[in-house]
Amino acid sequence: MTKVVLDAMGGDHAPRANLDGAKLAIERGIVSAEQLVLTGPRELLEPMLAPAGLVGVDVVDAPDVLTCADTPVDAMRRKPRNSISLGIGHVAEHKASGFISAGSTGVVVAAASVGLSRLEGVRRPGIAVTIQGEGGVPFVVMDVGANPLPKAVDLLQYGLMASAYYSGTLGNERPRVGLLNIGTEDTKGNPLTREAHQMLRHAPINFIGSVEGVDVFSGRCEVVVCDGFTGNVLLKVSEGCAEYVLRTTAGFMKEVGLDPDKSRLVLHKLMQRVDYSEYGGAQLLGVDGVVTICHGRSGPEAICNALRFAVRAVGAKVNQHIVSAVKAAAASSQ
Amino acid sequence: MTKVVLDAMGGDHAPRANLDGAKLAIERGIVSAEQLVLTGPRELLEPMLAPAGLVGVDVVDAPDVLTCADTPVDAMRRKPRNSISLGIGHVAEHKASGFISAGSTGVVVAAASVGLSRLEGVRRPGIAVTIQGEGGVPFVVMDVGANPLPKAVDLLQYGLMASAYYSGTLGNERPRVGLLNIGTEDTKGNPLTREAHQMLRHAPINFIGSVEGVDVFSGRCEVVVCDGFTGNVLLKVSEGCAEYVLRTTAGFMKEVGLDPDKSRLVLHKLMQRVDYSEYGGAQLLGVDGVVTICHGRSGPEAICNALRFAVRAVGAKVNQHIVSAVKAAAASSQ
Repeated sequence: MTKVVLDAMGGDHAPRANLDGAKLAIERGIVSAEQLVLTGPRELLEPMLAPAGLVGVDVVDAPDVLTCADTPVDAMRRKPRNSISLGIGHVAEHKASGFISAGSTGVVVAAASVGLSRLEGVRRPGIAVTIQGEGGVPFVVMDVGANPLPKAVDLLQYGLMASAYYSGTLGNERPRVGLLNIGTEDTKGNPLTREAHQMLRHAPINFIGSVEGVDVFSGRCEVVVCDGFTGNVLLKVSEGCAEYVLRTTAGFMKEVGLDPDKSRLVLHKLMQRVDYSEYGGAQLLGVDGVVTICHGRSGPEAICNALRFAVRAVGAKVNQHIVSAVKAAAASSQ
Repeated sequence: MTKVVLDAMGGDHAPRANLDGAKLAIERGIVSAEQLVLTGPRELLEPMLAPAGLVGVDVVDAPDVLTCADTPVDAMRRKPRNSISLGIGHVAEHKASGFISAGSTGVVVAAASVGLSRLEGVRRPGIAVTIQGEGGVPFVVMDVGANPLPKAVDLLQYGLMASAYYSGTLGNERPRVGLLNIGTEDTKGNPLTREAHQMLRHAPINFIGSVEGVDVFSGRCEVVVCDGFTGNVLLKVSEGCAEYVLRTTAGFMKEVGLDPDKSRLVLHKLMQRVDYSEYGGAQLLGVDGVVTICHGRSGPEAICNALRFAVRAVGAKVNQHIVSAVKAAAASSQ
């Protein structure tokens, strides 16, 4: 039986939103109560389970509670029994296949990098985020911050890993993979993108070449490959830009006297469209286990979606596909 | 008398939109006909001047017409008498103080880098773009693509140059300068941002530290400093994201049955808000002369705005302020 661990304590609205999200996932048949494991202080969580409708859910006692002020090093040295480290530990011991947290990205990445083996052949894990673009079609950006100074081979592996993740969870056998660049000619960009371009061209994926920033939301490709510095800027600029346009839209709607109820409906639909949690948060790909990182602001729906995508990634054997793809790429480059 | 050269041939709607933009600038008192010089094929342009209301405007004959297919090298070797090279040449010979083009960014940057001296003390020129953020307040991002692999000292100089440009053209004596990074602590980012952070801290500008992608549109600072690769991605992702949100908004407005006329008005206001040409296009800073690059799609208003900002930059002696700031920073770092 596939088990998944949910960090009950990570996120701005934990543990309440996390427990409610878990309940939604059970109600919707995404997981059974028996498949779900929670990490957090047992004495806090146990009395909450029955009222939250989570009878039969296991709790792994994690009495050390992290705060925003805890760095990854603090988390591991001074609070080793925190809900993130013990959740990752559960996956490392093969008691569960996936771990989901809305806690600090830095702590989750550090705990997973230390606690989980790398997948065979993978040099460096990276973070993949799924975003909705043109017509609501999702695309994946990788890496968005695990590795701000990757080598070309890492970008190649991001392409392979994100492609396998997309196929496994979003049902497109041959997602188009683009290399984020400044100009679409092979020779454009910096030494990193030029070298990565050559490697991606020969990889066993549907590589369409370089794409520019303006193509990211227009549906030119389903996978966008970039270094973690640029990817993080891309993700956060688009988040900030979308929020800014939405606030400005709301202001102008009021100013010109548009119907307030219908305006609210439009804004609500727009917010759903720009909400990354629709597609299950961020995935740390390249480690032996499914690791999902949700936005700190996650509410019950976001937690439930994260569980849905984690279970899909486990069921689709995304990590096995990654290992095969990395092996095939290494063989073909020799 | 300050003279400025307008490339009559660059851009998707040239020469028509460029001539109409020039006329607007004259009508609005931004420049006089005597101050304006056009570059382009004389035999094409001269018959158009009187009908376009541009009597008294000088034409520098540039018979070689560039196409989209011409690379910067083609432009300079095979078509040396093109409207960009000759316009830059006019500035190099001190016959004019500024040059404005809606032609290829690559050709303008190459022609200016070859044809104009660097400002004293400046290591590498960069491109600064002005964008509207929260509440319509403009901010400048530099570099957006001139140098995809800068050194830390280049980022320091971008901060100095963009700050001087902002003060000179947008009337804020102490614009806040942020270093684009992935995390706001000093130690975050990559080796480039860590070194640049130390240099910017001691520079004679209003440096507020690192800013993240999400802060760019929220009004946290008026100047955003970054390498040309990241800046180009930032600029184009935000352009693509804003267009995507606008298209989606238009669709949802129709879907919920909002008043079509008022909806159009809201969309029109939004388009103006996300239109970079409101603030005069991109500036190549660091060369001896004012060089403005407009979007290829520029219409008459965008051309007129570019003339307005170029004339302001000349009048405010932005380049003299840049030289002083670079000198002061070099002295204080010794």
